[in-house]
Amino acid sequence: MKHFTSVHDVPNLETLVQDALALKKAPYQHKTLGENKTLGLIFMNPSLRTRLSTQKAAMNLGMQVMVMNLDKEGWAIETKDGVIMNGTTVEHIKDAAGAMGQYCDIIGLRSFPKLQSREEDYAEEMLTMFKQYAGVPILSLESATRHPLQSLADLMTIRENAPQNKRPKVVLTWAPHIKPIPQCVANSFAEWMGNTDVELVITHPEGYELSEEFTAGASIEYNQDKALADADFVYVKNWSSYQDYGKVLSAGENWMITNEKMALTNNGKVMHCLPVRRGLELSYEVLDGPDSLVMNQAENRLYAAQAVLKSILSDL
Amino acid sequence: MKHFTSVHDVPNLETLVQDALALKKAPYQHKTLGENKTLGLIFMNPSLRTRLSTQKAAMNLGMQVMVMNLDKEGWAIETKDGVIMNGTTVEHIKDAAGAMGQYCDIIGLRSFPKLQSREEDYAEEMLTMFKQYAGVPILSLESATRHPLQSLADLMTIRENAPQNKRPKVVLTWAPHIKPIPQCVANSFAEWMGNTDVELVITHPEGYELSEEFTAGASIEYNQDKALADADFVYVKNWSSYQDYGKVLSAGENWMITNEKMALTNNGKVMHCLPVRRGLELSYEVLDGPDSLVMNQAENRLYAAQAVLKSILSDL
Amino acid sequence: MKHFTSVHDVPNLETLVQDALALKKAPYQHKTLGENKTLGLIFMNPSLRTRLSTQKAAMNLGMQVMVMNLDKEGWAIETKDGVIMNGTTVEHIKDAAGAMGQYCDIIGLRSFPKLQSREEDYAEEMLTMFKQYAGVPILSLESATRHPLQSLADLMTIRENAPQNKRPKVVLTWAPHIKPIPQCVANSFAEWMGNTDVELVITHPEGYELSEEFTAGASIEYNQDKALADADFVYVKNWSSYQDYGKVLSAGENWMITNEKMALTNNGKVMHCLPVRRGLELSYEVLDGPDSLVMNQAENRLYAAQAVLKSILSDL
Repeated sequence: MKHFTSVHDVPNLETLVQDALALKKAPYQHKTLGENKTLGLIFMNPSLRTRLSTQKAAMNLGMQVMVMNLDKEGWAIETKDGVIMNGTTVEHIKDAAGAMGQYCDIIGLRSFPKLQSREEDYAEEMLTMFKQYAGVPILSLESATRHPLQSLADLMTIRENAPQNKRPKVVLTWAPHIKPIPQCVANSFAEWMGNTDVELVITHPEGYELSEEFTAGASIEYNQDKALADADFVYVKNWSSYQDYGKVLSAGENWMITNEKMALTNNGKVMHCLPVRRGLELSYEVLDGPDSLVMNQAENRLYAAQAVLKSILSDL
Repeated sequence: MKHFTSVHDVPNLETLVQDALALKKAPYQHKTLGENKTLGLIFMNPSLRTRLSTQKAAMNLGMQVMVMNLDKEGWAIETKDGVIMNGTTVEHIKDAAGAMGQYCDIIGLRSFPKLQSREEDYAEEMLTMFKQYAGVPILSLESATRHPLQSLADLMTIRENAPQNKRPKVVLTWAPHIKPIPQCVANSFAEWMGNTDVELVITHPEGYELSEEFTAGASIEYNQDKALADADFVYVKNWSSYQDYGKVLSAGENWMITNEKMALTNNGKVMHCLPVRRGLELSYEVLDGPDSLVMNQAENRLYAAQAVLKSILSDL
Repeated sequence: MKHFTSVHDVPNLETLVQDALALKKAPYQHKTLGENKTLGLIFMNPSLRTRLSTQKAAMNLGMQVMVMNLDKEGWAIETKDGVIMNGTTVEHIKDAAGAMGQYCDIIGLRSFPKLQSREEDYAEEMLTMFKQYAGVPILSLESATRHPLQSLADLMTIRENAPQNKRPKVVLTWAPHIKPIPQCVANSFAEWMGNTDVELVITHPEGYELSEEFTAGASIEYNQDKALADADFVYVKNWSSYQDYGKVLSAGENWMITNEKMALTNNGKVMHCLPVRRGLELSYEVLDGPDSLVMNQAENRLYAAQAVLKSILSDL
């Protein structure tokens, strides 16, 4: 594997998941694989889990890690080609990415969407240009439209908790929030589930339909209760509208998952990528209850990152 | 030892001090103790000495270190239980601490007081909840009411410079400052001295009495000259009022320690945790003179942290 | 070598360049040299290349690295001696540098000029005082008036691409910019070229004469075309006026290097330290063309830093 920016970069999904589960059992078996290799983690936005889990994963493989908060420790990057740089941007991405590629064997990049122009965000300029100009493998730490590291951890978690003798019914449910949130986690989760043997149902108020690029194969159900019936996994996530791009269309009263709603499921488990706004996006009772897999997901972020880095290192 | 957030977490104070002094002589004897173990340093406020000395200490023991400035690289954390998170806080401490505990074997936390509500600051919510939810040992890097790493380094320094054949007289003296400063360093120093065989005298203008929780066993003397008489150690520190919480009550003219005041002591040594406002909190002449132990303290911060980490690692 | 803050700190320039070129061929031959040694990188200003290349260089030598953004993670430092610190500064450099020297075996420092007072900037207070008070070797990561790491990388690049049987003609040319930029890179480049066997021509609009402290031995040519004639290397850099300190005197139309201007040279190569404002400071066509050595320079920053650290470590 070279780049890891979406499920399409993965040669064999099953192999990757099994590799991650194996690393979870024995994290330190490959401490020489990353010897003399450096991972550069470039953050353009805040991060807690990705920042810590990916560093730890790299160090488990014997890599060195360098972290840079480009928004605070660097300067504004230009992505448009051919423009005269006499404004706010200080360095062109061709040069910035090229320079970083001189010092890092693998570069991780977190770059949120602006949520202004759908065309611009979904062009994934920053990520695409890093892949083009850095000269080294790029690992997405969350981009405008996807979050594959999260999705791999989510798939691991589903694999570990799947019901016996039943094709899992996985429900991706929209949740309330006060701010416009990117669609990247929802997109990515739907996309990875679409590449796995599960029944995926996506439920949300009207107007929150995700791009079909990611939801092919899933059924859409506007009635949350109907969607939750017999579910094995309930994946909770807010996202702003893709259709009316970046907008918060409704307060979503009654959309927060509670014990009462979970009673509709097949002893379903609840998932969320975190951070989560308790009491608004997801209820305290569910988060603190026996059906929550949220900490399992957080734990699996480490081994997901480690499996990805192991694969990239093996092919360097 | 599991957590290290106050003197009460230390099974044997003398052992810890001796361990730190031994590490100072041979810092690299235990380079495999921390192998495959990770220290996560979480800062909610600025730091120079703690940031650098604690990283170095961990690396001396073979640990990996990950540093995160939660205030700048993360987001606002909710500590109240059960509230609907529809405001400024982005993640609940239950989830944030739980997630960090997935990637770190030990977590260091720096969390200053707000100096608004005494009740809130002295409840030490952030620290308490990290201990409750992280699932791993918590190392205080300075909390609202204590700074035990500093106090251990201070105790080492006193031990190294103690007068022969005399129970040391240690004077904790208030000093002038222009801003409201937390009581944590003063509290912690008084508390550690209370657990050591020294005579502790605390001197300050009226209105600056520290909480008796920390000063039990010490005598209070409002006349600084009287307090300084025959002192072996003069520990200088500003703090805002605990009684009239968070207030700066007086400019404290004549309270700054000078050579003239030091002449009252028993060839006393001067101590300060740094940072210090020269010429206001403590005089240039004393800081640059032969009686200053300030750099010794700074040096000992490294071995204090290393002794604490060594103890925690040994019990993991 | 102890400190590395200018060309004058280098015992033998040729040896250092050859060492750097050798490290480029075999970067991991000295992995035990830096064992148990710590490099502290202290940034008072943003940085991309220096931040990443210097960390990587240190790790190649087996050093541990600690990075601190003093402007964001620390506090305001006082440099004036004897002042009463009752204003915005929180710690005196005597104490800050002294403390850092307790935890780091080598300290790297980046401290930009304020571009207000020429006297103040050229006194290089911050750098000078770090050398005086840290107690350990200081490595300049770019100071108010110099950038020796960049210059060493530049010299390596020139050495690698020098024309056969010709004393290289090197042209340092001013370039347009919208903001006042320090003279440090230009000063340093001129100074290092002055210590090498090349013909150095400096070309710029009138009013942009650099301090003769750095340009001794070079010829000044106000006509850029005349300067470029037969050049082997064209080093492009903007700087604000030294004479009319910190001012941007002219928009510099027609000063940007293009293919047309490069046609005047002797198949000359183009150099820039980055970051560069494309289309303003230097043309896209030249930067993306076959004559650009900009990425070679970026790559050589790693081995330049490694050679310097190797030399300092060997003398510790």
